Amino acid sequence: MPYELYYWPTIQGRGEFVRLALEEAGAEYVDVARGREEDGQGLGAMAALLEDPSIARPAYAPPFLRDGDVVIGQTAAILLYLGPRLGLAPAGEADRLWTHQIQLTVADVVAEAHDTHHPIAVSLTYEDQQPEALRRAKDFQANRIPEYLAWFDHVLGRNDGLHLVGGATTYADLSLFQLVDGLLYAFPRATERTLTENRHVAALHDAVRQRPRISAYLASPRRIPFNQQGIFRHYPELDP
Amino acid sequence: MPYELYYWPTIQGRGEFVRLALEEAGAEYVDVARGREEDGQGLGAMAALLEDPSIARPAYAPPFLRDGDVVIGQTAAILLYLGPRLGLAPAGEADRLWTHQIQLTVADVVAEAHDTHHPIAVSLTYEDQQPEALRRAKDFQANRIPEYLAWFDHVLGRNDGLHLVGGATTYADLSLFQLVDGLLYAFPRATERTLTENRHVAALHDAVRQRPRISAYLASPRRIPFNQQGIFRHYPELDP
Repeated sequence: MPYELYYWPTIQGRGEFVRLALEEAGAEYVDVARGREEDGQGLGAMAALLEDPSIARPAYAPPFLRDGDVVIGQTAAILLYLGPRLGLAPAGEADRLWTHQIQLTVADVVAEAHDTHHPIAVSLTYEDQQPEALRRAKDFQANRIPEYLAWFDHVLGRNDGLHLVGGATTYADLSLFQLVDGLLYAFPRATERTLTENRHVAALHDAVRQRPRISAYLASPRRIPFNQQGIFRHYPELDP
Repeated sequence: MPYELYYWPTIQGRGEFVRLALEEAGAEYVDVARGREEDGQGLGAMAALLEDPSIARPAYAPPFLRDGDVVIGQTAAILLYLGPRLGLAPAGEADRLWTHQIQLTVADVVAEAHDTHHPIAVSLTYEDQQPEALRRAKDFQANRIPEYLAWFDHVLGRNDGLHLVGGATTYADLSLFQLVDGLLYAFPRATERTLTENRHVAALHDAVRQRPRISAYLASPRRIPFNQQGIFRHYPELDP
């Protein structure tokens, strides 16, 4: 039975980290909320699993994954579950925890990237919090992108320079690719500049993009373009 | 060999979620950064593990835990590791993932609570971002505390009303206690009001506080009082 991914149908967002793992593994999956309501899919199917009061273990928010009877929310937990099943996690407990720890650090950067355009409230539009966004985005580019990318670069350099964990691609590598891809979209100048000082990260971004299945995925209509509704948004005024 | 917890010595912060699990289990542990430099502890010992370039797998930030050769960062990953070892996690994979998913949702609220006083940058003081903090704290109390606590309340109500997962205390219960305790300190009015509508959460907070080992811990000098350097801070102007 194919995996069922539930996520917002018009953005990459947090769901993209799960999509990339499924795509790299060539796994069968249904991106449910992007399907048609008449097929029992679409946003209605997602809302039912989030809001039906009879659901004992609802996710707090998308993305979530259904694999038969198991429903898992939180991006990092989904990848913790999928990693070994998709051949995208190392074998031992300590190595798997380390991979997960890296993923959780990616998630921290993602949350901070989101808050550059929503520093006050998710219930408000960007325009309603633009002055605060200008301030937060400036600090994010000056301090946070460099700090985080330097950490990933150190981890890559202390491993084999090509993978974050061990000698094969893990979901953490795919997630770092996606993080860098998003940062390049949202803050191209600051990110390009930071990448020149973090060559392992830049090389990993290139290498993952060229992996056959990832490359095919990125060129397909399954890859939703970056846009102004997602986590990574490009507002010229935030990238001066 | 006792567990070694590395975390900032003067705040509860994210380290407190780990301390509570260790205390509930009666585990032997050393709170390393609170020890004396002359014993090889203190902040120097923590900095060495974070900053020494020879460390192949440094945590991005405290807290991190050392158990023999294994060093784990990220609060939720630490608890994922400790849970089964301390008897604070359920047995099956799906139940363990669900416990972890709840912990990750607690972590999301913790990050948002932190950003009520630091909505712009961790590199700035609260006073340097007070106007933005006023705005963010208002939304957090009006929308986010009610949304999150309602979710935890639903989860409790759909389980046995007393535990988040199964029929015994897990680290998720301890973490929800700590989250509510922090919210009550930072935003007493909004949190009290929200708890009257989420009685399972209020009851769990009371029940965990009264567990013998937790109660003894909270009364001991090992429990650092809430203060204005931690994640949960009480600024009267943010709690009008």
